[in-house]
Amino acid sequence: MTGSEPADPAAPAPRRRGRPARTAAGAGPGARERIIAAARAEFAEHGYDKASIRGIAKGAGVDPALVHHYLGPKEKVFAAAVEVAFAPALAVPDQITADGPEQVGERLTRFILGVWDDPVTREPLLAIVRSAVANETAAAVFRDLVASRILGRIADELGVPDAGLRAELAGAHLVGIAMLRYVIKVEPLASAGLDEIVARVAPVVQHHLTGP
Amino acid sequence: MTGSEPADPAAPAPRRRGRPARTAAGAGPGARERIIAAARAEFAEHGYDKASIRGIAKGAGVDPALVHHYLGPKEKVFAAAVEVAFAPALAVPDQITADGPEQVGERLTRFILGVWDDPVTREPLLAIVRSAVANETAAAVFRDLVASRILGRIADELGVPDAGLRAELAGAHLVGIAMLRYVIKVEPLASAGLDEIVARVAPVVQHHLTGP
Repeated sequence: MTGSEPADPAAPAPRRRGRPARTAAGAGPGARERIIAAARAEFAEHGYDKASIRGIAKGAGVDPALVHHYLGPKEKVFAAAVEVAFAPALAVPDQITADGPEQVGERLTRFILGVWDDPVTREPLLAIVRSAVANETAAAVFRDLVASRILGRIADELGVPDAGLRAELAGAHLVGIAMLRYVIKVEPLASAGLDEIVARVAPVVQHHLTGP
Repeated sequence: MTGSEPADPAAPAPRRRGRPARTAAGAGPGARERIIAAARAEFAEHGYDKASIRGIAKGAGVDPALVHHYLGPKEKVFAAAVEVAFAPALAVPDQITADGPEQVGERLTRFILGVWDDPVTREPLLAIVRSAVANETAAAVFRDLVASRILGRIADELGVPDAGLRAELAGAHLVGIAMLRYVIKVEPLASAGLDEIVARVAPVVQHHLTGP
Protein backbone atom coordinates (compact mmCIF):
# COMPACT_ATOMS: atom_id res chain seq x y z
CA MET A 1 0.00 0.00 0.00
CA THR A 2 1.45 3.34 -1.02
CA GLY A 3 0.39 6.93 -0.57
CA SER A 4 -0.58 7.17 -4.24
CA GLU A 5 -3.13 4.34 -4.06
CA PRO A 6 -6.72 5.64 -3.99
CA ALA A 7 -8.37 5.35 -0.61
CA ASP A 8 -11.03 2.67 -0.33
CA PRO A 9 -14.25 4.67 -0.75
CA ALA A 10 -16.19 2.00 1.18
CA ALA A 11 -14.21 2.73 4.30
CA PRO A 12 -15.37 5.63 6.45
CA ALA A 13 -13.37 8.66 5.42
CA PRO A 14 -10.84 9.50 8.13
CA ARG A 15 -11.52 12.85 9.72
CA ARG A 16 -8.14 14.41 10.01
CA ARG A 17 -8.14 18.17 10.27
CA GLY A 18 -6.28 19.91 7.46
CA ARG A 19 -5.68 16.74 5.48
CA PRO A 20 -8.67 15.88 3.26
CA ALA A 21 -9.05 12.17 2.56
CA ARG A 22 -8.25 11.25 -1.04
CA THR A 23 -11.58 9.65 -1.84
CA ALA A 24 -13.94 9.86 -4.79
CA ALA A 25 -16.32 12.81 -4.66
CA GLY A 26 -19.04 12.22 -2.07
CA ALA A 27 -17.52 9.14 -0.43
CA GLY A 28 -17.47 8.86 3.33
CA PRO A 29 -19.85 8.23 6.22
CA GLY A 30 -23.45 8.02 5.14
CA ALA A 31 -22.62 7.79 1.42
CA ARG A 32 -24.18 4.35 1.00
CA GLU A 33 -27.39 5.47 2.72
CA ARG A 34 -27.54 8.63 0.60
CA ILE A 35 -27.07 6.57 -2.56
CA ILE A 36 -29.85 4.16 -1.57
CA ALA A 37 -32.20 7.05 -0.76
CA ALA A 38 -31.40 8.65 -4.12
CA ALA A 39 -31.91 5.28 -5.86
CA ARG A 40 -35.37 4.91 -4.30
CA ALA A 41 -36.30 8.37 -5.56
CA GLU A 42 -34.83 7.71 -9.02
CA PHE A 43 -36.60 4.33 -9.43
CA ALA A 44 -39.83 5.85 -8.09
CA GLU A 45 -39.75 8.75 -10.54
CA HIS A 46 -38.49 7.02 -13.67
CA GLY A 47 -39.16 3.30 -13.20
CA TYR A 48 -36.49 0.63 -13.54
CA ASP A 49 -35.88 0.96 -17.26
CA LYS A 50 -35.36 4.70 -17.36
CA ALA A 51 -33.63 5.11 -14.01
CA SER A 52 -29.91 5.81 -14.48
CA ILE A 53 -26.82 5.36 -12.32
CA ARG A 54 -25.87 8.92 -13.28
CA GLY A 55 -29.22 10.23 -11.99
CA ILE A 56 -28.82 8.30 -8.74
CA ALA A 57 -25.29 9.63 -8.29
CA LYS A 58 -26.47 13.18 -8.91
CA GLY A 59 -29.28 12.78 -6.39
CA ALA A 60 -26.84 11.49 -3.78
CA GLY A 61 -24.20 14.09 -4.56
CA VAL A 62 -21.54 11.50 -5.33
CA ASP A 63 -19.42 10.42 -8.26
CA PRO A 64 -21.24 7.83 -10.45
CA ALA A 65 -18.37 5.38 -9.91
CA LEU A 66 -19.21 5.35 -6.21
CA VAL A 67 -22.70 4.01 -6.90
CA HIS A 68 -21.16 0.96 -8.52
CA HIS A 69 -18.51 0.73 -5.86
CA TYR A 70 -20.99 0.61 -2.98
CA LEU A 71 -23.83 -1.33 -4.56
CA GLY A 72 -22.74 -2.88 -7.88
CA PRO A 73 -24.63 -2.81 -11.18
CA LYS A 74 -28.13 -1.39 -11.64
CA GLU A 75 -30.01 -4.52 -10.58
CA LYS A 76 -28.05 -4.64 -7.31
CA VAL A 77 -28.77 -0.98 -6.71
CA PHE A 78 -32.45 -1.75 -7.29
CA ALA A 79 -32.27 -4.73 -4.91
CA ALA A 80 -30.77 -2.54 -2.20
CA ALA A 81 -33.46 0.10 -2.70
CA VAL A 82 -36.16 -2.59 -2.58
CA GLU A 83 -34.72 -4.08 0.56
CA VAL A 84 -34.85 -0.74 2.36
CA ALA A 85 -38.39 -0.08 1.08
CA PHE A 86 -39.45 -3.52 2.30
CA ALA A 87 -37.73 -3.24 5.68
CA PRO A 88 -41.08 -2.87 7.51
CA ALA A 89 -42.52 -5.91 5.72
CA LEU A 90 -39.35 -7.95 6.28
CA ALA A 91 -39.92 -7.61 10.01
CA VAL A 92 -43.25 -9.43 9.62
CA PRO A 93 -42.38 -13.12 9.85
CA ASP A 94 -40.75 -12.94 13.27
CA GLN A 95 -43.62 -10.97 14.72
CA ILE A 96 -46.59 -12.76 13.26
CA THR A 97 -45.57 -16.32 13.98
CA ALA A 98 -44.01 -15.67 17.37
CA ASP A 99 -47.14 -16.61 19.37
CA GLY A 100 -48.26 -19.60 17.32
CA PRO A 101 -50.40 -19.95 14.22
CA GLU A 102 -53.87 -19.17 15.57
CA GLN A 103 -53.84 -15.43 14.94
CA VAL A 104 -51.34 -15.40 12.08
CA GLY A 105 -53.99 -14.44 9.50
CA GLU A 106 -55.03 -11.34 11.33
CA ARG A 107 -51.51 -10.29 12.28
CA LEU A 108 -50.15 -10.72 8.76
CA THR A 109 -53.14 -8.94 7.18
CA ARG A 110 -53.03 -6.03 9.60
CA PHE A 111 -49.28 -5.64 9.30
CA ILE A 112 -49.05 -5.73 5.48
CA LEU A 113 -52.10 -3.53 4.88
CA GLY A 114 -50.87 -1.19 7.64
CA VAL A 115 -47.60 -0.73 5.76
CA TRP A 116 -49.61 0.10 2.61
CA ASP A 117 -52.02 2.35 4.50
CA ASP A 118 -49.26 4.69 5.69
CA PRO A 119 -48.25 7.08 2.86
CA VAL A 120 -44.67 7.18 4.17
CA THR A 121 -44.17 3.43 3.78
CA ARG A 122 -46.56 3.14 0.80
CA GLU A 123 -44.71 5.38 -1.65
CA PRO A 124 -41.49 3.37 -1.90
CA LEU A 125 -43.50 0.12 -2.14
CA LEU A 126 -45.58 1.59 -4.92
CA ALA A 127 -42.46 2.59 -6.82
CA ILE A 128 -41.04 -0.90 -6.46
CA VAL A 129 -44.28 -2.57 -7.58
CA ARG A 130 -44.42 -0.32 -10.65
CA SER A 131 -40.89 -1.30 -11.59
CA ALA A 132 -41.50 -4.99 -10.92
CA VAL A 133 -44.62 -5.06 -13.10
CA ALA A 134 -42.88 -3.29 -15.97
CA ASN A 135 -39.49 -4.98 -16.03
CA GLU A 136 -38.31 -8.60 -15.82
CA THR A 137 -35.11 -7.84 -13.92
CA ALA A 138 -36.98 -5.80 -11.35
CA ALA A 139 -39.60 -8.57 -11.13
CA ALA A 140 -36.85 -11.08 -10.30
CA VAL A 141 -35.59 -8.89 -7.46
CA PHE A 142 -39.13 -8.46 -6.16
CA ARG A 143 -39.76 -12.20 -6.51
CA ASP A 144 -36.71 -13.14 -4.46
CA LEU A 145 -37.66 -10.74 -1.74
CA VAL A 146 -41.38 -11.48 -1.54
CA ALA A 147 -41.16 -15.20 -2.16
CA SER A 148 -38.04 -16.13 -0.25
CA ARG A 149 -37.68 -13.52 2.43
CA ILE A 150 -41.31 -12.92 3.39
CA LEU A 151 -43.63 -15.70 2.21
CA GLY A 152 -40.97 -18.40 2.39
CA ARG A 153 -40.11 -17.58 5.99
CA ILE A 154 -43.76 -17.56 6.99
CA ALA A 155 -44.15 -20.95 5.32
CA ASP A 156 -41.13 -22.30 7.21
CA GLU A 157 -42.57 -21.12 10.51
CA LEU A 158 -45.95 -22.67 9.87
CA GLY A 159 -44.57 -26.12 9.20
CA VAL A 160 -47.75 -27.33 7.49
CA PRO A 161 -47.92 -29.39 4.27
CA ASP A 162 -47.89 -27.28 1.09
CA ALA A 163 -46.74 -24.37 3.22
CA GLY A 164 -45.04 -22.62 0.28
CA LEU A 165 -48.15 -22.58 -1.88
CA ARG A 166 -50.32 -21.67 1.12
CA ALA A 167 -48.15 -18.68 2.01
CA GLU A 168 -48.19 -17.51 -1.62
CA LEU A 169 -51.98 -17.75 -1.90
CA ALA A 170 -52.30 -15.75 1.32
CA GLY A 171 -49.75 -13.27 0.01
CA ALA A 172 -51.58 -13.06 -3.31
CA HIS A 173 -54.74 -11.95 -1.55
CA LEU A 174 -52.88 -9.15 0.22
CA VAL A 175 -51.10 -8.13 -2.99
CA GLY A 176 -54.46 -7.96 -4.77
CA ILE A 177 -56.02 -5.84 -2.01
CA ALA A 178 -53.03 -3.49 -2.20
CA MET A 179 -53.37 -3.27 -6.00
CA LEU A 180 -57.10 -2.49 -6.09
CA ARG A 181 -57.16 -0.32 -2.95
CA TYR A 182 -53.94 1.69 -3.24
CA VAL A 183 -52.83 1.48 -6.88
CA ILE A 184 -55.99 1.24 -9.03
CA LYS A 185 -58.17 2.75 -6.28
CA VAL A 186 -61.53 1.09 -6.96
CA GLU A 187 -64.44 2.20 -4.82
CA PRO A 188 -65.77 1.32 -2.25
CA LEU A 189 -62.61 -0.67 -1.46
CA ALA A 190 -60.29 2.35 -1.63
CA SER A 191 -62.30 4.30 0.97
CA ALA A 192 -63.32 1.45 3.28
CA GLY A 193 -61.83 1.54 6.78
CA LEU A 194 -58.72 -0.52 7.42
CA ASP A 195 -60.45 -2.37 10.28
CA GLU A 196 -63.31 -3.47 8.02
CA ILE A 197 -60.89 -4.74 5.38
CA VAL A 198 -58.86 -6.61 8.00
CA ALA A 199 -62.03 -8.14 9.48
CA ARG A 200 -63.05 -9.47 6.06
CA VAL A 201 -59.65 -10.51 4.74
CA ALA A 202 -57.91 -11.92 7.83
CA PRO A 203 -60.12 -15.06 8.10
CA VAL A 204 -59.40 -15.83 4.44
CA VAL A 205 -55.65 -15.36 4.90
CA GLN A 206 -55.86 -17.59 7.98
CA HIS A 207 -57.75 -20.20 5.93
CA HIS A 208 -55.08 -20.22 3.23
CA LEU A 209 -52.30 -20.57 5.81
CA THR A 210 -53.68 -23.14 8.23
CA GLY A 211 -57.14 -24.21 7.02
CA PRO A 212 -58.26 -27.56 5.63
CA MET B 1 -73.66 18.49 -49.07
CA THR B 2 -71.46 19.11 -52.09
CA GLY B 3 -68.98 17.04 -54.01
CA SER B 4 -66.09 18.99 -52.52
CA GLU B 5 -66.95 18.08 -48.92
CA PRO B 6 -64.63 15.38 -47.51
CA ALA B 7 -66.24 11.99 -47.16
CA ASP B 8 -67.00 10.93 -43.58
CA PRO B 9 -64.14 8.52 -42.81
CA ALA B 10 -66.27 6.72 -40.22
CA ALA B 11 -68.71 5.63 -42.89
CA PRO B 12 -67.83 2.52 -44.85
CA ALA B 13 -66.11 3.64 -48.01
CA PRO B 14 -68.47 3.28 -50.98
CA ARG B 15 -67.25 0.71 -53.43
CA ARG B 16 -67.87 2.28 -56.77
CA ARG B 17 -65.75 0.97 -59.60
CA GLY B 18 -63.56 3.60 -61.23
CA ARG B 19 -64.38 6.28 -58.72
CA PRO B 20 -62.16 6.06 -55.61
CA ALA B 21 -63.78 7.37 -52.42
CA ARG B 22 -62.23 10.64 -51.27
CA THR B 23 -61.36 9.48 -47.75
CA ALA B 24 -58.31 9.96 -45.53
CA ALA B 25 -55.52 7.44 -46.10
CA GLY B 26 -56.47 4.05 -44.69
CA ALA B 27 -60.14 4.81 -43.97
CA GLY B 28 -62.82 2.32 -44.87
CA PRO B 29 -64.12 -1.05 -43.74
CA GLY B 30 -62.08 -2.59 -40.95
CA ALA B 31 -60.11 0.61 -40.26
CA ARG B 32 -61.40 0.94 -36.69
CA GLU B 33 -60.51 -2.69 -35.92
CA ARG B 34 -57.05 -2.27 -37.45
CA ILE B 35 -56.48 0.86 -35.35
CA ILE B 36 -57.53 -0.91 -32.14
CA ALA B 37 -55.27 -3.87 -32.91
CA ALA B 38 -52.39 -1.49 -33.58
CA ALA B 39 -53.19 0.41 -30.36
CA ARG B 40 -53.02 -2.80 -28.33
CA ALA B 41 -49.62 -3.59 -29.80
CA GLU B 42 -48.38 0.00 -29.26
CA PHE B 43 -49.54 0.15 -25.62
CA ALA B 44 -48.15 -3.33 -24.99
CA GLU B 45 -44.75 -2.47 -26.38
CA HIS B 46 -44.29 1.06 -25.07
CA GLY B 47 -46.70 1.46 -22.13
CA TYR B 48 -49.26 4.22 -21.87
CA ASP B 49 -46.86 7.12 -21.42
CA LYS B 50 -44.61 6.38 -24.36
CA ALA B 51 -47.26 5.06 -26.76
CA SER B 52 -48.01 7.58 -29.53
CA ILE B 53 -50.95 8.20 -31.82
CA ARG B 54 -48.44 8.41 -34.67
CA GLY B 55 -47.09 4.95 -33.81
CA ILE B 56 -50.61 3.52 -33.65
CA ALA B 57 -51.50 5.09 -37.01
CA LYS B 58 -48.35 3.68 -38.56
CA GLY B 59 -49.12 0.21 -37.21
CA ALA B 60 -52.64 0.38 -38.62
CA GLY B 61 -51.52 1.84 -41.95
CA VAL B 62 -53.77 4.88 -41.61
CA ASP B 63 -53.40 8.64 -41.37
CA PRO B 64 -52.86 9.76 -37.71
CA ALA B 65 -55.95 12.00 -38.00
CA LEU B 66 -58.05 8.89 -38.51
CA VAL B 67 -57.04 7.50 -35.10
CA HIS B 68 -58.55 10.56 -33.46
CA HIS B 69 -61.52 10.51 -35.78
CA TYR B 70 -62.48 6.93 -34.95
CA LEU B 71 -61.52 6.76 -31.28
CA GLY B 72 -60.79 10.25 -29.93
CA PRO B 73 -57.82 11.32 -27.78
CA LYS B 74 -55.18 8.95 -26.40
CA GLU B 75 -57.11 7.94 -23.28
CA LYS B 76 -60.12 6.95 -25.40
CA VAL B 77 -57.87 4.96 -27.70
CA PHE B 78 -56.49 3.21 -24.62
CA ALA B 79 -60.02 2.56 -23.32
CA ALA B 80 -61.00 0.99 -26.63
CA ALA B 81 -57.89 -1.21 -26.61
CA VAL B 82 -58.58 -2.23 -23.00
CA GLU B 83 -62.18 -3.06 -23.79
CA VAL B 84 -61.14 -5.41 -26.58
CA ALA B 85 -58.45 -7.00 -24.38
CA PHE B 86 -61.03 -7.50 -21.63
CA ALA B 87 -63.72 -8.84 -23.93
CA PRO B 88 -63.36 -12.38 -22.54
CA ALA B 89 -63.58 -11.12 -18.96
CA LEU B 90 -66.51 -8.82 -19.76
CA ALA B 91 -68.49 -11.88 -20.73
CA VAL B 92 -68.10 -13.19 -17.18
CA PRO B 93 -70.97 -11.65 -15.25
CA ASP B 94 -73.73 -13.03 -17.45
CA GLN B 95 -72.28 -16.50 -17.37
CA ILE B 96 -71.32 -16.86 -13.76
CA THR B 97 -74.48 -15.59 -12.15
CA ALA B 98 -76.91 -17.16 -14.63
CA ASP B 99 -77.58 -20.27 -12.53
CA GLY B 100 -77.73 -18.66 -9.11
CA PRO B 101 -75.08 -17.74 -6.54
CA GLU B 102 -74.10 -21.19 -5.22
CA GLN B 103 -71.27 -21.89 -7.64
CA VAL B 104 -70.38 -18.30 -8.46
CA GLY B 105 -67.02 -18.50 -6.64
CA GLU B 106 -65.81 -21.44 -8.67
CA ARG B 107 -67.15 -20.12 -11.96
CA LEU B 108 -65.65 -16.67 -11.52
CA THR B 109 -62.30 -18.06 -10.35
CA ARG B 110 -62.05 -20.58 -13.18
CA PHE B 111 -63.06 -18.06 -15.79
CA ILE B 112 -60.73 -15.24 -14.76
CA LEU B 113 -57.71 -17.47 -14.11
CA GLY B 114 -58.49 -19.30 -17.36
CA VAL B 115 -58.26 -16.03 -19.27
CA TRP B 116 -54.87 -15.40 -17.61
CA ASP B 117 -53.71 -18.98 -18.16
CA ASP B 118 -54.05 -18.73 -21.94
CA PRO B 119 -51.06 -16.86 -23.44
CA VAL B 120 -53.26 -15.48 -26.24
CA THR B 121 -55.63 -13.73 -23.84
CA ARG B 122 -52.94 -13.10 -21.22
CA GLU B 123 -50.61 -10.89 -23.25
CA PRO B 124 -53.03 -8.01 -23.89
CA LEU B 125 -54.18 -8.12 -20.24
CA LEU B 126 -50.58 -7.97 -19.08
CA ALA B 127 -49.94 -4.95 -21.28
CA ILE B 128 -53.00 -3.21 -19.86
CA VAL B 129 -52.06 -4.00 -16.26
CA ARG B 130 -48.55 -2.64 -16.84
CA SER B 131 -49.97 0.61 -18.20
CA ALA B 132 -52.54 0.88 -15.39
CA VAL B 133 -49.94 0.40 -12.67
CA ALA B 134 -47.60 2.98 -14.19
CA ASN B 135 -50.01 5.75 -15.21
CA GLU B 136 -52.93 7.48 -13.48
CA THR B 137 -54.96 8.00 -16.66
CA ALA B 138 -54.57 4.38 -17.64
CA ALA B 139 -55.46 3.38 -14.06
CA ALA B 140 -58.72 5.35 -14.32
CA VAL B 141 -59.68 3.51 -17.51
CA PHE B 142 -58.83 0.19 -15.90
CA ARG B 143 -60.76 1.16 -12.77
CA ASP B 144 -63.92 2.00 -14.69
CA LEU B 145 -63.78 -1.25 -16.55
CA VAL B 146 -62.89 -3.57 -13.67
CA ALA B 147 -64.98 -1.85 -11.02
CA SER B 148 -68.07 -0.88 -12.98
CA ARG B 149 -68.28 -3.33 -15.82
CA ILE B 150 -67.07 -6.53 -14.17
CA LEU B 151 -67.18 -6.35 -10.37
CA GLY B 152 -70.10 -3.91 -10.26
CA ARG B 153 -72.24 -6.11 -12.48
CA ILE B 154 -71.46 -9.18 -10.40
CA ALA B 155 -72.40 -7.22 -7.28
CA ASP B 156 -75.71 -6.17 -8.88
CA GLU B 157 -76.53 -9.76 -9.74
CA LEU B 158 -75.77 -11.03 -6.25
CA GLY B 159 -78.09 -8.58 -4.55
CA VAL B 160 -76.49 -9.09 -1.10
CA PRO B 161 -75.65 -6.30 1.39
CA ASP B 162 -72.23 -4.71 0.82
CA ALA B 163 -72.19 -6.36 -2.59
CA GLY B 164 -69.84 -3.76 -4.06
CA LEU B 165 -67.15 -4.29 -1.42
CA ARG B 166 -67.67 -8.06 -1.53
CA ALA B 167 -67.18 -8.19 -5.29
CA GLU B 168 -64.03 -6.06 -5.01
CA LEU B 169 -62.52 -8.24 -2.28
CA ALA B 170 -63.21 -11.32 -4.43
CA GLY B 171 -61.76 -9.52 -7.44
CA ALA B 172 -58.73 -8.46 -5.40
CA HIS B 173 -57.91 -12.07 -4.63
CA LEU B 174 -57.99 -12.98 -8.31
CA VAL B 175 -55.93 -9.89 -9.23
CA GLY B 176 -53.35 -10.89 -6.63
CA ILE B 177 -53.16 -14.47 -7.92
CA ALA B 178 -52.69 -13.14 -11.45
CA MET B 179 -49.93 -10.79 -10.26
CA LEU B 180 -47.91 -13.38 -8.34
CA ARG B 181 -48.54 -16.28 -10.74
CA TYR B 182 -48.33 -14.62 -14.16
CA VAL B 183 -46.50 -11.30 -13.67
CA ILE B 184 -44.03 -11.77 -10.80
CA LYS B 185 -43.99 -15.58 -11.23
CA VAL B 186 -43.29 -16.73 -7.69
CA GLU B 187 -42.82 -20.46 -7.17
CA PRO B 188 -44.54 -22.84 -6.44
CA LEU B 189 -47.59 -20.72 -7.36
CA ALA B 190 -46.45 -20.05 -10.94
CA SER B 191 -46.08 -23.76 -11.75
CA ALA B 192 -49.02 -25.17 -9.78
CA GLY B 193 -51.83 -26.67 -11.84
CA LEU B 194 -54.80 -24.46 -12.63
CA ASP B 195 -57.20 -26.99 -11.05
CA GLU B 196 -55.30 -26.93 -7.76
CA ILE B 197 -55.35 -23.13 -7.68
CA VAL B 198 -59.07 -23.06 -8.47
CA ALA B 199 -59.76 -25.66 -5.77
CA ARG B 200 -57.99 -23.54 -3.17
CA VAL B 201 -59.15 -20.08 -4.27
CA ALA B 202 -62.76 -20.66 -5.34
CA PRO B 203 -64.10 -21.29 -1.77
CA VAL B 204 -62.48 -18.05 -0.64
CA VAL B 205 -63.96 -16.10 -3.55
CA GLN B 206 -67.33 -17.68 -2.76
CA HIS B 207 -66.94 -16.68 0.90
CA HIS B 208 -66.25 -13.06 -0.04
CA LEU B 209 -69.24 -12.94 -2.37
CA THR B 210 -71.92 -14.73 -0.39
CA GLY B 211 -70.46 -15.79 2.99
CA PRO B 212 -71.28 -14.48 6.46
